[in-house]
Amino acid sequence: MSRIKVSFQPMDETVQADEGERVLDIASRAGIDISNLCGGEGVCGRCRVQVRRGAVNFSTKHLAFLDKKDLEEGYVLACQSRVRGEDVEVRVPSESVIEEEQVLTFDRILAFETPTPLPRRAAPPKIPYFQPLCRKMYLELPQPTLSDSLSDLDRIYRAIQKRMPGVHPDIHYTCLRGLGELIRENDWKITASVHLRDRDRPRIRAVEGGNTSSRNFGVAVDVGTTTIVAKLVDLKTGKIAAVKASHNSQARYGEDVISRMMFACKRGGLDTLVDAVGTTINSLVDAMVARAKISHQDITCFVAAGNTTMTHLLLGLSPCSIRVEPYVPTADHFPQLPAAEVGLRGHPRAVLHCLPCVSSYVGGDITAGVLACGMNDSPHMSALIDVGTNGEIVVGNSEWLVCCSASAGPAFEGGGTKCGMRAARGAVEKVRIQGDRVTFQTVEGEKPVGICGSGLIDLIAELFAEEIIDRSGKFLDLDHPRVQVTDETAEFVVADASLTGTGKPVVVTEDDIANLIKSKGAILAAMKVVLDSTGMTFQDLDNLFVAGGFGAHLDIEKAVMIGLLPDIPRDRIHFIGNGSLAGARLALLSSHAFHKAEAIARQMTYFELSVRPEFMNEFVAALFLPHTQLDLFPSVRESPARRKARGQGDGPYE
Amino acid sequence: MSRIKVSFQPMDETVQADEGERVLDIASRAGIDISNLCGGEGVCGRCRVQVRRGAVNFSTKHLAFLDKKDLEEGYVLACQSRVRGEDVEVRVPSESVIEEEQVLTFDRILAFETPTPLPRRAAPPKIPYFQPLCRKMYLELPQPTLSDSLSDLDRIYRAIQKRMPGVHPDIHYTCLRGLGELIRENDWKITASVHLRDRDRPRIRAVEGGNTSSRNFGVAVDVGTTTIVAKLVDLKTGKIAAVKASHNSQARYGEDVISRMMFACKRGGLDTLVDAVGTTINSLVDAMVARAKISHQDITCFVAAGNTTMTHLLLGLSPCSIRVEPYVPTADHFPQLPAAEVGLRGHPRAVLHCLPCVSSYVGGDITAGVLACGMNDSPHMSALIDVGTNGEIVVGNSEWLVCCSASAGPAFEGGGTKCGMRAARGAVEKVRIQGDRVTFQTVEGEKPVGICGSGLIDLIAELFAEEIIDRSGKFLDLDHPRVQVTDETAEFVVADASLTGTGKPVVVTEDDIANLIKSKGAILAAMKVVLDSTGMTFQDLDNLFVAGGFGAHLDIEKAVMIGLLPDIPRDRIHFIGNGSLAGARLALLSSHAFHKAEAIARQMTYFELSVRPEFMNEFVAALFLPHTQLDLFPSVRESPARRKARGQGDGPYE
Repeated sequence: MSRIKVSFQPMDETVQADEGERVLDIASRAGIDISNLCGGEGVCGRCRVQVRRGAVNFSTKHLAFLDKKDLEEGYVLACQSRVRGEDVEVRVPSESVIEEEQVLTFDRILAFETPTPLPRRAAPPKIPYFQPLCRKMYLELPQPTLSDSLSDLDRIYRAIQKRMPGVHPDIHYTCLRGLGELIRENDWKITASVHLRDRDRPRIRAVEGGNTSSRNFGVAVDVGTTTIVAKLVDLKTGKIAAVKASHNSQARYGEDVISRMMFACKRGGLDTLVDAVGTTINSLVDAMVARAKISHQDITCFVAAGNTTMTHLLLGLSPCSIRVEPYVPTADHFPQLPAAEVGLRGHPRAVLHCLPCVSSYVGGDITAGVLACGMNDSPHMSALIDVGTNGEIVVGNSEWLVCCSASAGPAFEGGGTKCGMRAARGAVEKVRIQGDRVTFQTVEGEKPVGICGSGLIDLIAELFAEEIIDRSGKFLDLDHPRVQVTDETAEFVVADASLTGTGKPVVVTEDDIANLIKSKGAILAAMKVVLDSTGMTFQDLDNLFVAGGFGAHLDIEKAVMIGLLPDIPRDRIHFIGNGSLAGARLALLSSHAFHKAEAIARQMTYFELSVRPEFMNEFVAALFLPHTQLDLFPSVRESPARRKARGQGDGPYE
Repeated sequence: MSRIKVSFQPMDETVQADEGERVLDIASRAGIDISNLCGGEGVCGRCRVQVRRGAVNFSTKHLAFLDKKDLEEGYVLACQSRVRGEDVEVRVPSESVIEEEQVLTFDRILAFETPTPLPRRAAPPKIPYFQPLCRKMYLELPQPTLSDSLSDLDRIYRAIQKRMPGVHPDIHYTCLRGLGELIRENDWKITASVHLRDRDRPRIRAVEGGNTSSRNFGVAVDVGTTTIVAKLVDLKTGKIAAVKASHNSQARYGEDVISRMMFACKRGGLDTLVDAVGTTINSLVDAMVARAKISHQDITCFVAAGNTTMTHLLLGLSPCSIRVEPYVPTADHFPQLPAAEVGLRGHPRAVLHCLPCVSSYVGGDITAGVLACGMNDSPHMSALIDVGTNGEIVVGNSEWLVCCSASAGPAFEGGGTKCGMRAARGAVEKVRIQGDRVTFQTVEGEKPVGICGSGLIDLIAELFAEEIIDRSGKFLDLDHPRVQVTDETAEFVVADASLTGTGKPVVVTEDDIANLIKSKGAILAAMKVVLDSTGMTFQDLDNLFVAGGFGAHLDIEKAVMIGLLPDIPRDRIHFIGNGSLAGARLALLSSHAFHKAEAIARQMTYFELSVRPEFMNEFVAALFLPHTQLDLFPSVRESPARRKARGQGDGPYE
């Protein structure tokens, strides 16, 4: 078979490929992680690449994702293209490359760099030291003699205790079978996989001949309802070996958590969902294993963080009782278990750890977020907001933590609004309004097809600043050139039908605005009720950490202007991106961090909003822009247009 | 099918049986444990019973165990007889009933009786309190509310912590699947099987609906090389529900430990032996389950005690390295494991615990013996001797323990001597000599067919007391009417050919005597070397515990006279019978006792005799009756015949 040279730009990576090999797989071998939410099924359209030299076979089944111009310019989907004949040059647009999640301080910690200055007024978090949940220890055992006749096992324990004084090691019984022969065949040189979930009682779960200590990998997984992201981490160095993301294939059985739960409670539903999430994670693992050129055998542990329902579904636990009052899960804290038990592909005795949850509606993803932002280690007051269909809020410091969950509705994820969509290609993600001129930016710079959460926040802030809508979100001037009134509602035209990818205008209606105000109101009210209950105000917050899928795109100023985030000095607000994944990785690399996560979950007091009458009052008070009580938002109080004129706004988007 | 009434005498138990049912099984149902070493295969001949009314079908294949007189008197083997037609009355001779192992103080402890006076000069052992390795806890959980919304699992933990303050319970992951449904279907009333090997971290291994706490059974097993004895213990009450014993079916692959190891090191040998011991234990478990009318599901844990090789073979660990210098086993301490992993039949998540060993030649049976006699808890000085093919000796007190193992040879088990046999039917077990008159007692009072260990000790002591042999074991007077000289050796006729069951005389030769002197010499020398090394003499021993299969039959006075046991006040010498089984049961009923066993095994210093030149000197010095240094045996120093004349001896046996 002829070998084809494939080069990737702008990375300038060249690899040899076989005739017929998929571009996606070739890129993976070259160390380039192409965005690929659907797992290479040709369904998500995220893996667009441009063939600039040579040719590929592209399946025409997937032309829907490409227009004529795309095709003329050589765009194809990497997952549906196979190289042929001659050498190929592929350009990978930056939007098609999977980005690292944003992590504030933790990559620094994990990379052993000197900590750079931490968030203002925050005390340095106590840095959890590097001690992966599984350590591979290479041991050269002294051979026994009549005067040193310890058993093989005690000899191993003694060698481990030399390196970890004071511990009492234990061994999984399966390791004892054949141990004597293994040790002797390998001349008393072995590698023990020592698991450290219980730090005082490290447990050997595998023994291999010779020195395999450099082949020790872990997988951190953010088990999202919509998207699953996984990282392959070298547990010897702490470095990231690969990252992969994919749609959670459970989604076909229900889009959101509630419908997922309902499906699970039908006959056979639970097994189907357990199987689906396992299959998705395995597809990510397989891709990362190929990418990092390791073997599945080298994966010794997994750490998963997800909301309570997702964690139950991963472990095969019924989520049925979560759905009905009094909303009680089977478990909040999960014992470790063999990863193979839920079908995950790694070493046959690899272990799966799940980050602990606080309640049915505050899950391991939030515990992970707290761990990742380090608020539990600081004497200063912090809050963490994770924005999604549920907005989870945590407030506290090293002394105490209170959390709650407010149903925010789907507005921030593009649901429940006329032209709403997820932050996918063609979604309007940023908006500027100057008079009747509207400029915007879309995901991947494509023709607009809808508007995503961050675009909606931007848009409403601009409408408010330009005084096109009033504080209740109603249009002030129905004769505004961009406001059109239909039989049902009034709506603002963001993009004219002539400019869109759908041939229909992208609009936002008064109802959409009302929905978003409800969503932001719920989150702010929840935060306020929690703060009030502890005798604090927003101004008492030294740090406000914001996590969530939209984190990287969110404009802080706009989020404050509409009253989603409180009006506190902007340098106290920090985006931490995917806090769930960051926390899972932290736990993977440090058993101390894992124990910290367990302490966090136990320490957090869950605050059930539905039994608090003051929540409803605060919610109603928050149904204005930015809020009924303007003194809560002093920097927004002056005419927003005037503030904008003073240079707070940027110029129009190109 | 007609029902037959079967009554057993002298127990006066009557049960209904089906036509064709085995007498052995009917007896079992009636609560009578008939001795049955071979597992009902018709091979051991131990289950003789007398049919006094009615008739049974008896397989003539097994006539070898019965003579004409037996048959005339209605003797049959219970395992080979099936009832038929009319009502049957069966007499069970006392020698056909399995006896409890002798336990000194521990049955008292376990039965919660007031401790009766303990061995002279011994401080009362610290009584391990009753806390079985598995506790079934019936929990009526309060139903969750919005203000008490703990997860199901935390709700269980809370209920356990109420009863066991300060513990941190854990759960086996398999229990979580379906837990929510189970709890709700059973109206929040459940029973948790809580395992307590790790006392601070009790682990739930099973959850059942409703109250099953009264169905909690454990099995203690003495895994002997020759015989396996098991006890079914009610873990709620501490009472014994059934006892069964059987030949270890591994024996067909090698009689003794060394040949068993050799077989294990051949291809496939290990699996065969693992299978054999599991099958034997299961046959005992099945019989006990039927006897106690429980279900296998009710067995939550097993505790096994055996020598190091037997423990390895039970767990599937290769014993090959035990055999060759420097005699190192795979492990001394064994992690707990699912009993199902080695094929044992109990609850699917029942746990197997093995008592820890000290070295390749001091096993869990010895640890169990120390635990059972409690010497580790007393400030006074004690020694434990376990006599078998290897004589294991432990010396020490609550401060320290030293142990060693001396190869005693097979003489005490009837091997290596011309007419030697195990303590089976027809074995001469006691002997008296008065002048040229010899009287003896045989096992089950049958015609003599050979001489077992205790008979041999008796005989040699008598020969020595009567001055028929000298201190080196040689015949003093070859013209003695009972001494006959052959081409090869001189021998003493115990039973004339006309009196025996074989038609040949039962004799003991000078070589036999030399062998036994070697065996007793090895044991005494080992004890002396260990005591010398600690600066002590026999007289410093406050207690001497003797364990071993012959324990119950051994005549202390004779054993001292030949120098097997040291010449210390007789009230300091105690037989503890099957110390291995007693220790295993103690550990089953008390996790504290199990931990004590672990501490005992770690505390014991193994004393390797083979590297001690003084052992050889002591061994040579011990090759006399009772010993070269007569001042070690002051009570034997005066003419033994004279002592006997003063009334130490009994009259002749009838």
